[in-house]
Order: sequence, then structure tokens, then C-alpha cells
Amino acid sequence: MNLLNLKPIGFIKTPFQTKEGMPIQPTGAKGVKGIIEIDLQYIDGLKDLDGFSHVILIYHFHLTKTYELVVKPFMDDQLHGIFSTRAPKRPNPIGFSVVKLNKMEGNILHIENIDVLNGTPLLDIKPFIPDVDSPEVQKIGWLEGKSDKMGDKISDKRFKE
Amino acid sequence: MNLLNLKPIGFIKTPFQTKEGMPIQPTGAKGVKGIIEIDLQYIDGLKDLDGFSHVILIYHFHLTKTYELVVKPFMDDQLHGIFSTRAPKRPNPIGFSVVKLNKMEGNILHIENIDVLNGTPLLDIKPFIPDVDSPEVQKIGWLEGKSDKMGDKISDKRFKE
Repeated sequence: MNLLNLKPIGFIKTPFQTKEGMPIQPTGAKGVKGIIEIDLQYIDGLKDLDGFSHVILIYHFHLTKTYELVVKPFMDDQLHGIFSTRAPKRPNPIGFSVVKLNKMEGNILHIENIDVLNGTPLLDIKPFIPDVDSPEVQKIGWLEGKSDKMGDKISDKRFKE
Repeated sequence: MNLLNLKPIGFIKTPFQTKEGMPIQPTGAKGVKGIIEIDLQYIDGLKDLDGFSHVILIYHFHLTKTYELVVKPFMDDQLHGIFSTRAPKRPNPIGFSVVKLNKMEGNILHIENIDVLNGTPLLDIKPFIPDVDSPEVQKIGWLEGKSDKMGDKISDKRFKE
């Protein structure tokens, strides 16, 4: 069945203790600082990461136990397929955020613009490379005219378990 | 232990049958077309995805069975920590690519600029939203002066199992 078993490489510490009141995307978390503590067994893998101003975090939406294929995201009152949203209750509960890397000290990363719950298990870090990760986008579907306002939105109870 | 078990939501079909000769990033796969076949049980989750010109793919580097914490990436002759590279032999073998979505027909997605092996198991799709996914980047570490040339590089045997 091609199952994949993952285990955290570390954990993300943020000021967000509950899902309610959280920013819904990094733009809504502008300036919010957090810390990543990487498991010491992986510390050699961090070499030269601090050369990059921005990093990709791939993490586990660890409080999400079920999924919904059609959801009303925070930004809209219409129903959309889960894969056309960034909502957490996905078939594979994997999150993705790009954050600013301010400083690295040993296995500790000081990050900024972080939008995840405190204690979120981190699965992978990758360097953000504009030449490959920032395409020229022509359309953003149902988010047209809304995505620049994501920073104003705060999570409500919609995705509470 | 906070283990996470994932299963594919579909599979990615591409012209790349072996790791050798593959482009190393989507910039090196410009114009290369592929098809994603989403498992029919998830088809409702695709609603409205075709409004977006670009989508984020999160997938399993399924031929990668081991990991290395320090690697020589294709773009350099120096050793770097695995987390400061996009190399596949990572502690959690998860890949990330942004591709162009040309057309959606039922559970079939026609994509472009795809840089993964044929048969790659797909774990998640998300809409690419420039306001949240394209930060203003100040530095790109060891890739400075190299990342715009990634399109010229072709995978060699370095990461062969």
C-alpha cells in the first residue's frame, strides 16, 4: 500500500497555544517569532542552513484527527475542495509554511512569521529558493481579491475538532 | 513517539523513468508535462482547484530508503547539511515542488514543469498563493549565483541508492 511512516525531526515552539485566535497564514503572523528545536541526532544536517534568509517548513497538523473533502475556509463563505484550500483537515495532515530564519544556534532555529500551533512536530526543513519556488502566477481562483487580506483574518472555531 | 502514517492520495506520471538524467528542480523541467491521477475516493477534494494556475505538490521520494545528514548537492562541490539542500535522501523523504496546473478533468490533473520520477506517490496538493508563499528573500546561502543555473543541471548518479 506504499505507506509512509514519518517521525518528527524536531518541534516548533510558538506563542499559539490553541487553534482559536491563530493567524491563518504566515502573512497573518508577520513579526510573530518562534523557535525550532531540532533533535540533536540531526544537527549535522543543519550545516549552512543559516545562509538562507527563508526556509520551508513541512510539519504535521498534529491535532487533526479526521479530514473533510469539502470545507468552508476562513477566507470565504463558499464550499471548496480541501485541496484548493490550506485548511488543516486534509487526508494527509501535512502543513507547509515559508518562514524567515533570523538566527541559528546549534540545534536551535530562531524563526519569524510563524503561523503554527505551539508544539507542532516538524517533519522537514528545506531552503527557500526563489528561482524554483516563486513561479509567475496567473490566477489564484476563489482567493482572487482575498489573499492579500489573509493577514487580517484570525482563525475561528471552524476547524476545531 | 508522535509517528505519522501517510498514504498516497494519488500518483504522478512523468517522462522520467530513472533518477539519472532527471532535471534537479522544476526550473530544469520547464515545459515537461505530467499527469496526476488522484484516487477516486478523494475526487470531491479537488473542487475549485482548477481556478489556480500553480499548485504545491508534496510527495514521497519513494525510492529513497536511507538518509545522509551531509551531502554534496548537484549544484556544488562542497559538503552541505541535508536541510540546506533539496536532495532526496532526507530523514523524512518528503519532496516539494510548485508546478503549473494546465487542466483538470475529473480526477486527472495535467501539470507542467514537473521534476519527479514517474510513479511518485503524491501526499498532498495545495493551492500556491503568492501573497503567502513568495516572501522577499534576502539571501540564498551557498546557492548564491548558482540557483538561476539549476535549469542547466541534470541529475547524475550522486544520489543513486
